[in-house]
Amino acid sequence: MKTQTSPIQTKIIDGKAHAARVTEEIREKVSLFQQHHQTTPGLAVILVGNDPASEVYVRNKAIQTHKAGMRSFMHMLPASTSEAHLLTLVERLNNDPEIHGILVQLPLPEGINPTTIIQGIAPHKDVDGLHATNAGKLALNLPGGIIPCTPLGCLLLLQSEIESMRGLHAVVVGASNLVGKPMAQLLLQQGCTVSIAHIDTRNPAEIAQQGDILVVATGNKELVRRHWIKPGATIIDVGITRIPTEDGKTRLVGDVTFEEALGVAGRITPVPGGVGPMTIACLLRNTLTAAELQLDTKD
Amino acid sequence: MKTQTSPIQTKIIDGKAHAARVTEEIREKVSLFQQHHQTTPGLAVILVGNDPASEVYVRNKAIQTHKAGMRSFMHMLPASTSEAHLLTLVERLNNDPEIHGILVQLPLPEGINPTTIIQGIAPHKDVDGLHATNAGKLALNLPGGIIPCTPLGCLLLLQSEIESMRGLHAVVVGASNLVGKPMAQLLLQQGCTVSIAHIDTRNPAEIAQQGDILVVATGNKELVRRHWIKPGATIIDVGITRIPTEDGKTRLVGDVTFEEALGVAGRITPVPGGVGPMTIACLLRNTLTAAELQLDTKD
Repeated sequence: MKTQTSPIQTKIIDGKAHAARVTEEIREKVSLFQQHHQTTPGLAVILVGNDPASEVYVRNKAIQTHKAGMRSFMHMLPASTSEAHLLTLVERLNNDPEIHGILVQLPLPEGINPTTIIQGIAPHKDVDGLHATNAGKLALNLPGGIIPCTPLGCLLLLQSEIESMRGLHAVVVGASNLVGKPMAQLLLQQGCTVSIAHIDTRNPAEIAQQGDILVVATGNKELVRRHWIKPGATIIDVGITRIPTEDGKTRLVGDVTFEEALGVAGRITPVPGGVGPMTIACLLRNTLTAAELQLDTKD
Repeated sequence: MKTQTSPIQTKIIDGKAHAARVTEEIREKVSLFQQHHQTTPGLAVILVGNDPASEVYVRNKAIQTHKAGMRSFMHMLPASTSEAHLLTLVERLNNDPEIHGILVQLPLPEGINPTTIIQGIAPHKDVDGLHATNAGKLALNLPGGIIPCTPLGCLLLLQSEIESMRGLHAVVVGASNLVGKPMAQLLLQQGCTVSIAHIDTRNPAEIAQQGDILVVATGNKELVRRHWIKPGATIIDVGITRIPTEDGKTRLVGDVTFEEALGVAGRITPVPGGVGPMTIACLLRNTLTAAELQLDTKD
């Protein structure tokens, strides 16, 4: 291994600033959409049960949607809601011309099969990009699909930092349907060599070390240490975990040990203020995309 | 690197024998299916134009289907067939209860968009597994999908040779929609760490060297040389190219330089007689799967 004579000056990627720029673009496009179609994109957000974290998330999503000039409809249902009832609501929203995007906040209470509900959403209204049709369009690189918000946000951050990813080795740590797997597809489309490590990977540090780009989405706090990082790598840290601090308060940390990455990584997203704001900005973008998919084909 | 004191005795994986076993299983299951449903699975194969290689392929597919106890319907259309006409045929077959599987032989003549045709096949009749719904079910690990024949065949070969793939590093060389990308999904589902190399990969040998499992599907004859191979690796060679020999004849070679792999690889599929026979066996399997998807839900 080469000895690092002078430490790298690690750039902190400002997710908030990027997200603000994306949101402003969406706001302008929403305005044009309204003029063109005489209608306003509408997002329906469904929350079942009383998980406090989920309540904060959906409220924030609704506020941001509204700020971007779109309509936002909240459906807050009790934890006792049946799967059949929820499915009926989804089907009603599928057929409602005022609703262009449907988001069902996960996790759902026990007794409701999330797959049944998510696959019940009309693909062109599935702003989370979790319907099989959307996952398939992503896998096959077909147009007209909707890409999950978090990996889409990570891609936009990478594209703003790296002119061309073609031929770079991208390592994705975490293989979830929501982040890791669609992220790997997006990086393949960019021409990256892609490696996917996960819970069963025997030598995760050795795999991660190869990444010119390293996207980490495991929910395993501060998993990635200094020796996992290729000098100069661009790191996208999707994880977010709240931990107690010595003074009895709490703070948020990512899947990467941030302090150890400084001086080794070329660029890194902070937690908070990195991927999080971009995920919400991409939800707004997906809502507009969904509205365009529904309205533009009718022209 | 460890010096290899005694060369490895490379096992040649007998694809023909495996395919014969799969085909025999299908034949028995077809017989049970007939008893249960009072109907015989039927496969429609569509060939447009006069490509001689394609003619050989579809004839072989039809014969094998028939041998497995299923019905086989050939539609051989002139190269002048319009996209609209072909789409109408596909839609008629989608609605024909005697047809359970539809296969459109690729490549199609210029002037016909293959995406339009393939995405026009009903997902549960799409025995090539190329419809977005099937690609999405594979990506999300959802039931009820159909997996492309070649990667499915490769998976069955691997499963017959390796008891558990969990934690093994699998390297896929080639990132096509038909083989490389679905193969990567299948290996992820098996718990492998997965790396995908392709035309833009800068250090393919170094990536390939990491593979406990190495699946090569590039169509680039004898691309993989001895130094690409991890000692003891299991190699699945999907490539098949006809090359001239010194005596004025021709022979088939794979994407792996077979002679160089001997003594290094733990196991390897030969070309011919490796993946090829398994692809056809999996077409039969997919036709039965398609028939089950259509009939079992009606019970």
